[in-house]
Amino acid sequence: MIVTLTTDFGLSDGYVGAVKGVLLSMAPHATVIDLCHVVPPGDVRHAAFVLYQATSTFPSDSIHVAVVDPGVGSDRRILAVRTTGGTYVAPDNGLLTLILANSATQEMVSVTNPIYWRDRVSATFHGRDIFAPVAAHLANGVAVSRLGQPVTDPVTLPLHELEFPAADTIIAHVLHIDHFGNLILNIRADQLPPCPVFEVMGHTIRGLHRTYSDGAAGQLLAYVGSTHDHVEIAVPQGHARHRCGATAGTRVLIRNEAK
Amino acid sequence: MIVTLTTDFGLSDGYVGAVKGVLLSMAPHATVIDLCHVVPPGDVRHAAFVLYQATSTFPSDSIHVAVVDPGVGSDRRILAVRTTGGTYVAPDNGLLTLILANSATQEMVSVTNPIYWRDRVSATFHGRDIFAPVAAHLANGVAVSRLGQPVTDPVTLPLHELEFPAADTIIAHVLHIDHFGNLILNIRADQLPPCPVFEVMGHTIRGLHRTYSDGAAGQLLAYVGSTHDHVEIAVPQGHARHRCGATAGTRVLIRNEAK
Amino acid sequence: MIVTLTTDFGLSDGYVGAVKGVLLSMAPHATVIDLCHVVPPGDVRHAAFVLYQATSTFPSDSIHVAVVDPGVGSDRRILAVRTTGGTYVAPDNGLLTLILANSATQEMVSVTNPIYWRDRVSATFHGRDIFAPVAAHLANGVAVSRLGQPVTDPVTLPLHELEFPAADTIIAHVLHIDHFGNLILNIRADQLPPCPVFEVMGHTIRGLHRTYSDGAAGQLLAYVGSTHDHVEIAVPQGHARHRCGATAGTRVLIRNEAK
Repeated sequence: MIVTLTTDFGLSDGYVGAVKGVLLSMAPHATVIDLCHVVPPGDVRHAAFVLYQATSTFPSDSIHVAVVDPGVGSDRRILAVRTTGGTYVAPDNGLLTLILANSATQEMVSVTNPIYWRDRVSATFHGRDIFAPVAAHLANGVAVSRLGQPVTDPVTLPLHELEFPAADTIIAHVLHIDHFGNLILNIRADQLPPCPVFEVMGHTIRGLHRTYSDGAAGQLLAYVGSTHDHVEIAVPQGHARHRCGATAGTRVLIRNEAK
Repeated sequence: MIVTLTTDFGLSDGYVGAVKGVLLSMAPHATVIDLCHVVPPGDVRHAAFVLYQATSTFPSDSIHVAVVDPGVGSDRRILAVRTTGGTYVAPDNGLLTLILANSATQEMVSVTNPIYWRDRVSATFHGRDIFAPVAAHLANGVAVSRLGQPVTDPVTLPLHELEFPAADTIIAHVLHIDHFGNLILNIRADQLPPCPVFEVMGHTIRGLHRTYSDGAAGQLLAYVGSTHDHVEIAVPQGHARHRCGATAGTRVLIRNEAK
Repeated sequence: MIVTLTTDFGLSDGYVGAVKGVLLSMAPHATVIDLCHVVPPGDVRHAAFVLYQATSTFPSDSIHVAVVDPGVGSDRRILAVRTTGGTYVAPDNGLLTLILANSATQEMVSVTNPIYWRDRVSATFHGRDIFAPVAAHLANGVAVSRLGQPVTDPVTLPLHELEFPAADTIIAHVLHIDHFGNLILNIRADQLPPCPVFEVMGHTIRGLHRTYSDGAAGQLLAYVGSTHDHVEIAVPQGHARHRCGATAGTRVLIRNEAK
């Protein structure tokens, strides 16, 4: 059974290791896979996007643990959710927003049953003391329903929706900026007008290309990205974020090219 | 059998990979787990703390390899140590100080028997040529005692001890600063006076809280941390190190609040 | 079966995770090992060196996937190569230059047979859609020859060769600079004159030492390195790159010491 980990614990401390130790002590046959541990501290939106990018390629019986949890120790709930794509354990703070919006939920509970936790639970490290043992029990075959009471109202992040202020005009937003500086928009290729023109931070980009190498080095370019067909903006052999100053949330105006 | 790795090799070269290749060539059934590879170069104290944070959650038959080794190639010894919590392979430079102080040692040798090393040992990469093959042999069932001669005088780091200069006054120190900027002190919650007041770098912090979310955003806060109950100082939604300028070793004065 | 990964995908996104998901979905018994994911974006030369450093310690039936691929989506080929040391899958952009130069090639094909790819191949993420499924099929026992047509003309990087401008004079170059700031040269210890003197960026370094601890703290020092006996230049307890300003490609003049 695969258990993946996505956290903001960083790479310089023993926190990720402590979580792995609990997992492997309790579920020795689990395969523990790191997805990302350098989510910016507390950046739930970033972590939500990482899960959306990475987890859909895993077997659907995989368990995905995500711990970006600025509210640890408060009364925020912890969710365990079985979807058509995989089973997730995460704080109820919006971290699963993109997963829940893009797959069918089969079961969702609030993790309240302490018999599946470590004997002693610290107030500040639920990743080690609740999330990891719960994931280990799931890997060992415990049903989601055993972990706590059903939940129907998970917290969701206020994501930007596409807006259509006029005929042939769409307002989209930057959903995520990746390691290469590419801007990933909240619009998919099949939602674009036939001859799209993008305006972002004062720059105009014409047309939708197939890939980077269709563009000129150093020029902003829009193309069909690899993450669930979301449209991306990049600079071949360059860095689109540095080039145009966009951040997650930046507005992108899309018009249909006048003929 | 689990073999964990803690090094200052960084992430940008092939060094960690070369170690993993040796381990998996010699012990194909080992599960290799990365604890930390971004220990600041040569920072034995940092690595000692990572081992202390991470390794106690692993099964006690795990093998923990730590290579932060500024003296590689000199005549510093290499230790293999079996404790109640796990088996460790590390240079004899103090890296195991916190482990040896907090668990019972059952066997400790100097790794001198070259039949357990790679055929050819470089002068600069003992991680690959000695530590990894020794760990692989341990994972394959070789006893610690076979690896070399018993040792009773391991090198230890000069750790700060608590000082008690007056009634109701304790001098503690910052033991480690984590990725979130939290200051982890060398004092445990049960060692504090009943109504503690902390003074660190000119800041005064009253009381001991249960967790971050009990404090106000932006305010320095002391609470019971997750690492073996050591007291920590943090800034909820902030960064305590940036806020107060402390470093590992900074002095913290603790008094009991006058009523 | 071991599958290693070397990419420039970075650590902050879900890209590496997506590749691991494909691998483990298709080859559940594979052991996936991270070599390096922080290759500077597009730096084929850096990745070539990481493969050269790391992969020779792995069992020779291991599969090494390397994705540093600025030409993704263009008509650059993808190579699958079986060598005496391991099997490699990489873009045909020079990434395998050092591997091909240092091991015997037994089989090399262009990966053109789409029955071994994912059903739907994006234009920008061949790591997930071609490299990973091809590696999974190799791990499951598919022969390299099944993946596509034989290739005899792989792209190679223009590596610096040693030059011998005069008797007792060699011109070498910096091949790689590691995490510690050590300069790894393109010359091996057995190619040096008996009493070598190195000149690099205006600094003169006398003699070849066995290891760092033979030198004075803060002084540039040449010694036999751990990567296939290449000569290295370091500053004990310091950082040679910062000290002398060298970069990959910097010229190093080596003379034999006059008696």
